[in-house]
Amino acid sequence: MRAVVMRNKELVVDTVPDPVPGPGEAIVKTLACGICGSDLHALKFIDKVVAIARETDTPFNMDPAKDVVMGHEFCVEVLDYGPGTDGAVKPGQRAVSMPLVFRPSGIFGVGYSNEIPGGYGELMVLNASLLLEVPNGLGTEHAAMTEPMAVGLHAVEKARLDSGDAAMVFGCGPVGLAVIAALRLRGVEPIVAGDFSPMRRALAERMGAHVVVDPKVRSMIDAYREAADLRPAAVFECVGVPGVLLDVMRQAPRGAKIVVAGVCMEDDAIRPMVGINKELSLQFVLGYTPLEFADTLGALADGRIDVAPLVTGKVGAGGVAQAFQDLGSPERHAKILVEPWRA
Amino acid sequence: MRAVVMRNKELVVDTVPDPVPGPGEAIVKTLACGICGSDLHALKFIDKVVAIARETDTPFNMDPAKDVVMGHEFCVEVLDYGPGTDGAVKPGQRAVSMPLVFRPSGIFGVGYSNEIPGGYGELMVLNASLLLEVPNGLGTEHAAMTEPMAVGLHAVEKARLDSGDAAMVFGCGPVGLAVIAALRLRGVEPIVAGDFSPMRRALAERMGAHVVVDPKVRSMIDAYREAADLRPAAVFECVGVPGVLLDVMRQAPRGAKIVVAGVCMEDDAIRPMVGINKELSLQFVLGYTPLEFADTLGALADGRIDVAPLVTGKVGAGGVAQAFQDLGSPERHAKILVEPWRA
Repeated sequence: MRAVVMRNKELVVDTVPDPVPGPGEAIVKTLACGICGSDLHALKFIDKVVAIARETDTPFNMDPAKDVVMGHEFCVEVLDYGPGTDGAVKPGQRAVSMPLVFRPSGIFGVGYSNEIPGGYGELMVLNASLLLEVPNGLGTEHAAMTEPMAVGLHAVEKARLDSGDAAMVFGCGPVGLAVIAALRLRGVEPIVAGDFSPMRRALAERMGAHVVVDPKVRSMIDAYREAADLRPAAVFECVGVPGVLLDVMRQAPRGAKIVVAGVCMEDDAIRPMVGINKELSLQFVLGYTPLEFADTLGALADGRIDVAPLVTGKVGAGGVAQAFQDLGSPERHAKILVEPWRA
Repeated sequence: MRAVVMRNKELVVDTVPDPVPGPGEAIVKTLACGICGSDLHALKFIDKVVAIARETDTPFNMDPAKDVVMGHEFCVEVLDYGPGTDGAVKPGQRAVSMPLVFRPSGIFGVGYSNEIPGGYGELMVLNASLLLEVPNGLGTEHAAMTEPMAVGLHAVEKARLDSGDAAMVFGCGPVGLAVIAALRLRGVEPIVAGDFSPMRRALAERMGAHVVVDPKVRSMIDAYREAADLRPAAVFECVGVPGVLLDVMRQAPRGAKIVVAGVCMEDDAIRPMVGINKELSLQFVLGYTPLEFADTLGALADGRIDVAPLVTGKVGAGGVAQAFQDLGSPERHAKILVEPWRA
């Protein structure tokens, strides 16, 4: 099959062996697959990603010297099933799945494994039991947004919101926008969001933020105080760059629950006394539960979350490397989808 | 009165003006006052303490250029009350209090203020309404341990323990020992504690730790796995030195609730990916609630917490500077009490 391959820390289009479904698995055609900020990070920090995955016993274990086909935000068409396997989603129908494959040999992160290719390739294998049929009428591009939007829902769940909590969202890239959508779904008000980018601020408003701030003009905490007074705060760090966490801790109200949803690959300096004096908590989050994933698909399908504004570009296999470059600029794109069946 | 004064980053014995009780306040005689690790930190990092207190709007606001009489872990004898004030604790009776004084002009941390002297002086003023009478039979030295033991109870409360949680305690200085006592009070089992010091490990056992580890010989996580298998963990960082938090995060089991009870005055580097991959949470804690403080006094008075092993020394005013030195070595002391009525 044709696939975009991460090889020697670069992205190349090449022909690689078709994946073969084992028992309990389906072979599927990738219809669309989003480019995630984690993929950009992984390309840049692959050695660090692998080292920390090993240290923390996390299933993103791959040999960076070997090919990796990334892509874990996908909508697929079921083609067939492996030996002795029949699935609830019939061949020809569309599906999404959490990007994990459970095999007798271990758990593999789809798109972060040498063995299990991700959605930047034309074909994938997935566990039959994890496939969720795309409800009628939900567009393929929007179904592919299930995974990144589930990240937002999970972050909000992990905040363990109490009644009366208001929210601050630092950073309105794809993670921050997903958090805003999930906060809105939970009825949190006000949601105060900030980003340096005008385009991202506009998207934050469309996703449901009540107050949107340019941090160059006004501090998040000033905007929060005006909008929420002394209400307790759930605070979402959705940037993932060194230095931001300390800034978030400094601006967080006393007693705030800070959810660290940004994925910072580098070591970061914090000032414990700021956390101590304000009794802050930091909850690091990863992924989502199967129920949160399914709930997100439902919310997209019945229109409670509208992801249309977030899909800002589509490329074929040949356009992925350039798309990685383009995503570096927040003014141009929120989410770019890869259609690997296109050259 | 005679007092041990922090002046130009040194401790000197001097005569300072007697404090004068205002309305709603009592004048008390200090019977005993513990030396806290925070006092050692404050002497070393006073400028930083003040800067961060201002930044975080915390009532440890003092001018380091002016005298400060430290000491916030005290047992006192009530001498008299201020104008128009009568208290529940009669003159001649013993009492403890949270080390805060509420005045029309603001909230003052007793022992961390230029205005309100702490327990390293012969006399203090305290809010009449905050005084708790020492129940009959509880020794003065042990009553003075209410404050540091309340710190442990609060840390355990903030862990929001779930049924079945086991515990890891990194560091068995006064904070770690107080945490162990509070965990024991809550019936948590097993409690796995670690410290490099043989004396502190012996105290950890006496306070109720089920497994005590020398981290030079065996890692905390290995000991935890053997004692608690895959049970979820509440993890207590009770060291407060740069680098320890990252070590705790690396050793913490997946999903652990880490309570940061150590007071690290310096900036510290963490590795967010370790927190992310294991979905750790960090809860920074400070002080205790009034109820936790009162509950701790009750637990000491009825013998549910036995602090006798923790009081390892007593000094008069003239011995405080040397005691600060001695507390630098974990082999010699756990808690030294100051009796400022003694020269």
